[in-house]
Amino acid sequence: MLGGADVTLRKFNPKILVYSPQEAEEYAEMIRGHGYTAVTAASTPDEAEQHLPGTEILLCWQFPTYLFATQAAQSVRWIQSMGAGVDDLVSAAALPRHVVLTRIVGQFGAAIAEYVFAYLLFLAKDITRSREAQKRHNWDPFIAQLLSEETIGVAGLGSIGGEIVRKARAFDMAVHGLSLSGKQADLVDRIYRPSEWEKFASEVDYLVLTLPLTATTRRVVDKKVLSAMKPGACLVNVGRGQLVAEDDLIEILHTDHLRAAVLDVFEREPLPPDNPLWSMPNVFVTPHSSGPSTPKGVTRFFIDNLARFCEGKALEGAVNRERGY
Amino acid sequence: MLGGADVTLRKFNPKILVYSPQEAEEYAEMIRGHGYTAVTAASTPDEAEQHLPGTEILLCWQFPTYLFATQAAQSVRWIQSMGAGVDDLVSAAALPRHVVLTRIVGQFGAAIAEYVFAYLLFLAKDITRSREAQKRHNWDPFIAQLLSEETIGVAGLGSIGGEIVRKARAFDMAVHGLSLSGKQADLVDRIYRPSEWEKFASEVDYLVLTLPLTATTRRVVDKKVLSAMKPGACLVNVGRGQLVAEDDLIEILHTDHLRAAVLDVFEREPLPPDNPLWSMPNVFVTPHSSGPSTPKGVTRFFIDNLARFCEGKALEGAVNRERGY
Repeated sequence: MLGGADVTLRKFNPKILVYSPQEAEEYAEMIRGHGYTAVTAASTPDEAEQHLPGTEILLCWQFPTYLFATQAAQSVRWIQSMGAGVDDLVSAAALPRHVVLTRIVGQFGAAIAEYVFAYLLFLAKDITRSREAQKRHNWDPFIAQLLSEETIGVAGLGSIGGEIVRKARAFDMAVHGLSLSGKQADLVDRIYRPSEWEKFASEVDYLVLTLPLTATTRRVVDKKVLSAMKPGACLVNVGRGQLVAEDDLIEILHTDHLRAAVLDVFEREPLPPDNPLWSMPNVFVTPHSSGPSTPKGVTRFFIDNLARFCEGKALEGAVNRERGY
Repeated sequence: MLGGADVTLRKFNPKILVYSPQEAEEYAEMIRGHGYTAVTAASTPDEAEQHLPGTEILLCWQFPTYLFATQAAQSVRWIQSMGAGVDDLVSAAALPRHVVLTRIVGQFGAAIAEYVFAYLLFLAKDITRSREAQKRHNWDPFIAQLLSEETIGVAGLGSIGGEIVRKARAFDMAVHGLSLSGKQADLVDRIYRPSEWEKFASEVDYLVLTLPLTATTRRVVDKKVLSAMKPGACLVNVGRGQLVAEDDLIEILHTDHLRAAVLDVFEREPLPPDNPLWSMPNVFVTPHSSGPSTPKGVTRFFIDNLARFCEGKALEGAVNRERGY
């Protein structure tokens, strides 16, 4: 039986297309479970092109954006991304200005902050050293670093950065932040503006990137910023690969200036097998999985937004396409 | 120049002996720096016996307790342990009842809680799997466990357990506790008494032991409790090795009932090289180093207590020898 809200909404039965290379049908089935019947699923560009005509709403991940230039896409009024980052959609020149674009907000903070602290603590406690000692049956007491005596710098203070700050507080770290908008400055002990990257980078032991990718953040962490980092500091990128000048990073990682780089995102994904980052001893590579879009979480967000859409209300996660996020 | 408080205290210049197999002289020098001049250091039982006569205050770690039965120890009035656990001193039959015994409290919570979450996150995020994939240059996305969807059970809600609970809250975990005294029950979502070990163990994904070792807690985590744990749950022991029936633990770790045991403490320390725990794939061995006594932290605690001692005030960390901690 459908709930009252769902019955009301069924008056509006917009044509919805779900696009995802992996789990499109799973999403579609969950959406149908909420009473929306005009839902189709596509996993390939060909299927997308076939189902696009008449589609009003697109829920998508890694959508083939060249299709926006085709007649088939003309009925689309709203695109909900399954992710937090929408740089691919924002930069799709073929996407008409009247189409509303939304991204997921407030869903990835917990998972990404857990990932960040998993690696911060892995490094601080030197679990590698403990594992090696255990292999040799070697009782080797050493005094590990305390996060409570370290400074974290969080670049980007949106919902993900905010959750990282919250956990850093529980570890009694000193917390610095760099914010594009200046919002949420009161979360941190010291706030920096985008003009102060080098100063910001020079004062923290762990530099964590959670920024969106925009024209102004592309390759913002370059040789200058990396060189300004404290000797022995660690870089953690859970934002977008293109925030970092990957060639500069590889160069500096060949020196012993940084202790480690923890990278969940890369200029090219999947990271090509011959990329040197794979085999550098001070680099931790993970496959863009720190904040996975789960069908359950994304569907919940989308269904709530869909209710707002049907009622003509403002949508959550609306993207300002000039700003880029 | 000495501060006012130190000058006052120099009227009292008790004879202090520092005993530590490693860092005795380092401690002694720091204490002298506070204006106390009658400080000696010993690193071996022979040196201890030589310096004991006339000693009023003993600051010690791994003290040879048989010396308490000798004439040389008769002048001792107060013993400050360098650690949080004092089971060796409490169980020293030769220690006269009139000697005041204190332990360090409130110093180890941060370090031990960081250690606990380092391993909880290491397991939840399956860093081992990511490291293996990286070795093969294999882009292998998987959805990691979220601590926010797990339950932690903290046995012992003193200053260390309390700090673990605080961090568990920042990770939005469900938090259960088992308390010997019933104190601090309001910290947790569900509280269990010592009569409810099996029920407590059966409901948590991570069981963390921070209890003191007493007659009632010795081998309290035995085959019954270990078997009651959830399949796939993890045991973390940062209390004392003897809290766990190590033979029962080894037996159950040979099955796949538990996912992992993270052990910083053992029945015998250093863990003998032929102990099977060293080479079990689901066991993490660390050398009783999760909450290291640092000379700086311990000395600060001791100097504050010394001021109280000289002023005839009650000491911090006073041990109830009947209770055992």
